[in-house]
Amino acid sequence: MTSAATADWHAEIERAAQRLDAHRGAYLRETPLWKLSPAAFGLPATPGVEIWLKLEHLQVAGSFKARGMMNRLLANDIPSSGVVVASGGNAGIATAAAAHALGVRCEVFLPSVSPEAKRARLRALGAEVTVVGEAYADALAACLTRQRESGALLTHAYDQPEVVAGAGTLGREIEQQGGVPDSVLVSVGGGGLIGGLAGWFGPRSRVVALEPERAPTLFRAREAGEPVDVTVGGVAADSLGAKRIGSIAWEITQREVRDALLLDDDAIRAAQLWLWKEMKLAVEPAAALPLAALQTGAYVPSEGEKVCLIVCGANLDPAGLA
Amino acid sequence: MTSAATADWHAEIERAAQRLDAHRGAYLRETPLWKLSPAAFGLPATPGVEIWLKLEHLQVAGSFKARGMMNRLLANDIPSSGVVVASGGNAGIATAAAAHALGVRCEVFLPSVSPEAKRARLRALGAEVTVVGEAYADALAACLTRQRESGALLTHAYDQPEVVAGAGTLGREIEQQGGVPDSVLVSVGGGGLIGGLAGWFGPRSRVVALEPERAPTLFRAREAGEPVDVTVGGVAADSLGAKRIGSIAWEITQREVRDALLLDDDAIRAAQLWLWKEMKLAVEPAAALPLAALQTGAYVPSEGEKVCLIVCGANLDPAGLA
Repeated sequence: MTSAATADWHAEIERAAQRLDAHRGAYLRETPLWKLSPAAFGLPATPGVEIWLKLEHLQVAGSFKARGMMNRLLANDIPSSGVVVASGGNAGIATAAAAHALGVRCEVFLPSVSPEAKRARLRALGAEVTVVGEAYADALAACLTRQRESGALLTHAYDQPEVVAGAGTLGREIEQQGGVPDSVLVSVGGGGLIGGLAGWFGPRSRVVALEPERAPTLFRAREAGEPVDVTVGGVAADSLGAKRIGSIAWEITQREVRDALLLDDDAIRAAQLWLWKEMKLAVEPAAALPLAALQTGAYVPSEGEKVCLIVCGANLDPAGLA
Repeated sequence: MTSAATADWHAEIERAAQRLDAHRGAYLRETPLWKLSPAAFGLPATPGVEIWLKLEHLQVAGSFKARGMMNRLLANDIPSSGVVVASGGNAGIATAAAAHALGVRCEVFLPSVSPEAKRARLRALGAEVTVVGEAYADALAACLTRQRESGALLTHAYDQPEVVAGAGTLGREIEQQGGVPDSVLVSVGGGGLIGGLAGWFGPRSRVVALEPERAPTLFRAREAGEPVDVTVGGVAADSLGAKRIGSIAWEITQREVRDALLLDDDAIRAAQLWLWKEMKLAVEPAAALPLAALQTGAYVPSEGEKVCLIVCGANLDPAGLA
């Protein structure tokens, strides 16, 4: 696959699924698809509406990222220098877990602001952690330098074709489990997940992009007509804190995604707490945007609509739910 | 249904399921059944073994109790004095939720040792909370007195036929979702849940009773040849803290259950933490006994065995998982 613009994403995602299926078990899981009624969420009882929860926060390493990282590693020859990544979040953890699963070396570059708990988790997965500089940009620069020196395979959190295709296997799995939903509500950070889902479902589903007001990478790109840097912050910055929408996601979403909605932090946090209190689902803020869109009325399903909410991750401190 | 000994449990559970199906939505849910491989749990790869997780901790009010309490209320005429219960745990919460769902009055009696958080949760469900005496026995006595005065419908945490039959609908749901498992691993407190599951599956599945060493109601009853009071304590006492196995559960398990295993608190706590760390399932200690039985080797599946683990509840302080 040489270019996102010419890619046959559906076929690429099929290839990713074949690769990943061979490794299902300890290192990758088929996650549950849970079909519920609007009443289960305190929503108005519109006739025929079904709300599907794709519980992808139960994936290995606690997020959908495991799919993309594992596909990136499986689709490439990995040199003896292993893989390198600059991320202490879900992407870094998923890369370390995939490398651990395949028995290859993994180096992770982090800035000094990264919490010790995340470093410890990466080390527990066998990763070599290098702390360098004060900001994420410093760690990324060191990571890229290291990659040029060692020839290691670089994984990017969202803007690599194998990473997007791996995320797209989530769409394929939803279809196998429950059919094609009429709409898919999904959070956007760098866009790897929405790129994969829109690449899979194409025009068969209405894929709706959801972003925090304080991390609006796709929304601002649409205003500007091209990807632009944005200032990120707010409750979901930990996992949706990319500064700019990825080029692959930009290309796919321009073609396949009509709706990009913004949600405020209060609505996101309220939905996150609701999911714990009423559903006993412990999820990170990024995973709560789809429910927030329904509960605030930002997105209103039509009669008979089957709406799939992507519950994308669970890397959180559970004490924050108490 | 006049007597547990003569009951056709399978038919009674069918009747319960018909009643409950009409109320599915906001107040009762079909919970996911998740089929995984032994490798997903770090267990040896015995050929053909499947591990099924029944995620019943995602039930309304956070435990399987919602089924039994809702069935108890639906199967009886409820006087204007409503329902009464003496429980601040899963049974009290489930009774209050069922009463709230049906718009009937609910009185809950609790001792002074009950935490304010539980009282607040019950009040939020519309229950009238009466704090009386220092021990649970005092609250129960006051509850029974009140019931005699008011004629309210009493719900018992486990030893009523409708409560056991309601719990049995969990077995019926597992069968509808995934077929009949070869074995069902389930925690036992007062025995309402195992009674319902053994009543449903009968001799078609090997139902295995799991108890904490420090709350061995069924184990000690078997030693004594009849239900006896036991001293209860330990990490799962909050939900498995019944002092004596229920008479209904005793009758059914004597007929249908061969295996009763004890697990120590360290193993239960380790399995609970493992479910959070590796699976992102936030569950109470009682829900971790089935996995503890597998991870300690107390129960070893045979080749080709389909083992269903009942994940029974999620009423916990999530801070305890950090």
